[in-house]
Amino acid sequence: MTATAAPAVRIVEVGPRDGFQMERTFIPTPLKIATVDAIMAAGIAKLEVTSFVSPKVIPQMADAADVMAGMTRQPGVTTVALVPNLTGAERAAAAGVDVVKQVICATETYNRRNVGLSVDESVATLRATVGSVAGRATPEAVVALSFGCPLEGIVTEDTVVRLVARVVEAGVAEVSIADSIGVAHPRQVASLLRRLQREFPGTTFSLHLHDTRGLGLVNVLAGYGEGIRIFDASIGGLGGCPVVPGATGNIATEDVVHMFEEMGITTGIDIERVMDATRSVQSFLGRALPGRVLSAGTRARALSTAAARA
Amino acid sequence: MTATAAPAVRIVEVGPRDGFQMERTFIPTPLKIATVDAIMAAGIAKLEVTSFVSPKVIPQMADAADVMAGMTRQPGVTTVALVPNLTGAERAAAAGVDVVKQVICATETYNRRNVGLSVDESVATLRATVGSVAGRATPEAVVALSFGCPLEGIVTEDTVVRLVARVVEAGVAEVSIADSIGVAHPRQVASLLRRLQREFPGTTFSLHLHDTRGLGLVNVLAGYGEGIRIFDASIGGLGGCPVVPGATGNIATEDVVHMFEEMGITTGIDIERVMDATRSVQSFLGRALPGRVLSAGTRARALSTAAARA
Repeated sequence: MTATAAPAVRIVEVGPRDGFQMERTFIPTPLKIATVDAIMAAGIAKLEVTSFVSPKVIPQMADAADVMAGMTRQPGVTTVALVPNLTGAERAAAAGVDVVKQVICATETYNRRNVGLSVDESVATLRATVGSVAGRATPEAVVALSFGCPLEGIVTEDTVVRLVARVVEAGVAEVSIADSIGVAHPRQVASLLRRLQREFPGTTFSLHLHDTRGLGLVNVLAGYGEGIRIFDASIGGLGGCPVVPGATGNIATEDVVHMFEEMGITTGIDIERVMDATRSVQSFLGRALPGRVLSAGTRARALSTAAARA
Repeated sequence: MTATAAPAVRIVEVGPRDGFQMERTFIPTPLKIATVDAIMAAGIAKLEVTSFVSPKVIPQMADAADVMAGMTRQPGVTTVALVPNLTGAERAAAAGVDVVKQVICATETYNRRNVGLSVDESVATLRATVGSVAGRATPEAVVALSFGCPLEGIVTEDTVVRLVARVVEAGVAEVSIADSIGVAHPRQVASLLRRLQREFPGTTFSLHLHDTRGLGLVNVLAGYGEGIRIFDASIGGLGGCPVVPGATGNIATEDVVHMFEEMGITTGIDIERVMDATRSVQSFLGRALPGRVLSAGTRARALSTAAARA
C-alpha cells in the first residue's frame, strides 16, 4: 500500500485473536500465520495477532509465540497481543509484540470469573505490566463490559469512569471501551464516549463493539460522531458463536470498512483483499462467516456493474 | 394497547406483503390472516396486508381480497395494500383497504421490468388511481430504487426529486423513499431526505430500507436524524432471499423497535409480542428468520435478568 494521506479512521483487526480463540478445533499454526499475513496485505495497519494466555485456559492460543515468530513483520504495522496477567505480558514482550493489551472487566463479578482476580488485583497487575514491558512494548488496556454485564446487569458511566481513571493512572495512553456482549445502544455509546474524552483529554479511546443485536455499525457511527477514530473489527464477523448460524459477535471488518468508505471516510484498507482473507478463513473453518458485505458484495461494485451493463 | 401518548416513531409492518410475496410455496390464507392479526396485537398501527397484483405475476398474493376479508379489523389500525396499476387499485379499494400504495421505480429501465410501464405511464396510472380511490382509500406512493438501481447503477438526487414532484402533483401526500436493493449509505440517506423535506414541505416522507449490506439500522438513524418518523420493517427480517442463509432483505421489525425503545424513542409496539408473531411465521415457513434480537433477546431483558441473578 502506498498511502498518500493518513486514513480518517483506523480499523484494528481482532479476528486472529477474538475470533480464533472461540474455535474449539485447533487451527494449525501455519493457517493462523497465513491469515495474519493476508490481513496485513489488505492494508490493515494494526491487528491483534494472538493472546498470551495459559494454554490450559485457551488451548487454541498455545502457539502464540510461534505465530508471532512465523508472521512476516511489515513496516508500519502494529502487532497487538492480549494478556491476562504479568506472565502473559512478559511472554508477549519477549515474542516481540508491539502492543501488550490487558483486559479489565468493569464489574467485580465478571472480572473474577474472567481472570480470577478482583478489579483491584487486575489494576495492580496492569501497573506491574506497564513497568515490566517498558521500553519493549506499548501497554494498552481494555475496559470490558463497559455498557452492561451478563452477571451484574447495568454498568453505570461512573463505574467506567472510575476504572478508566485507574487505568490511565497506571500509565496507559490508549484505552479500548468494550461492549463484548453487544448490549450498547447508540445514545449510550455517544454519552459514555463524550464523557470519557472530556474527563481524560490526554487519553486516546477506541471502541470494541459486538453486533449481537444488530447495533454494531450503529454504535460505530455513534462513536465516530463523538470523535472516536479507532474501531475493532473481525474479518467476516469471526467470533460469533460457532454453533448458532448467523449469530455474530464482533462487527465484520468488511462491513465497517464498507460503511466508512462509501461515506467517503477513508480507512486505508482494500476491502476486496480483506474478503480474500476472509474467504480463506471460511475455507479452512468449513463454514460461512456472517459478514454481510462478504455475501452481498460492495455497493460500489453493485452500482458500477449495473452502470457498465446499462 | 392503551396508548397514553403518541409514539415518537411509527414502524410500518411490511412482512405479510414484502416478505410473503418472496415465498415460493403458497402460504395458506388462514396463516396469512393469523399473522396479520398477531402483528396488530403487538401494537403495530399500520401494516401492509397484501398486494393486489395479477395472480399470474405473484401467485402468492392471489388471496389478497380473502386476507382483507378474513382479518380482524382493529380500530386505529391502518391497512395498506400495494398495487401495480388501476385494476389493482380498484380491487384494493373494493376490499376495504385504508391505503392504496403504488410503486414507481426511479429508473426507466427497472420500472419497465417491474410493471411493464414507462415512468410516464406509471405516473399517469398513479393519477388515475388517486381519482379512482378518492373517498374510499388514501393513495400513497413508493419511489423505489431511490438510492441506486441494479440495472442503471447510480440514481441521482435530481432524478428522485423530479419523480417525487410528479407524485406529489398527482395528489399523494405521503411518499415512501425506498432502497429495495440495500445500497444506501447514511450520508446519502441524510442528504436525500433533507433535500426532499426542504423541497416538499407539505409532503410526509417515510423510509423503506433493506439491510443487504448491514446498513439498515444505520440508515434508519440517519433518516431519524433528518426528522423522518415513519419506517418500514418486516417481522424477523422476512423478505430476504429464502435460499441464502442469513441473507436479509427488509430490516427486522424487532431490531428497529429494539433500537428505538432502548434509545428512549417510543414506538408503541410490544417487542415480545412481535417476536411471538415472528416465531409463528418461522414455524409455518420451517426456517429461521434473520432478525437479530429474535435470536439474541432484548438488551433490557439481558440486563434485568443479570441484575436479578446478581
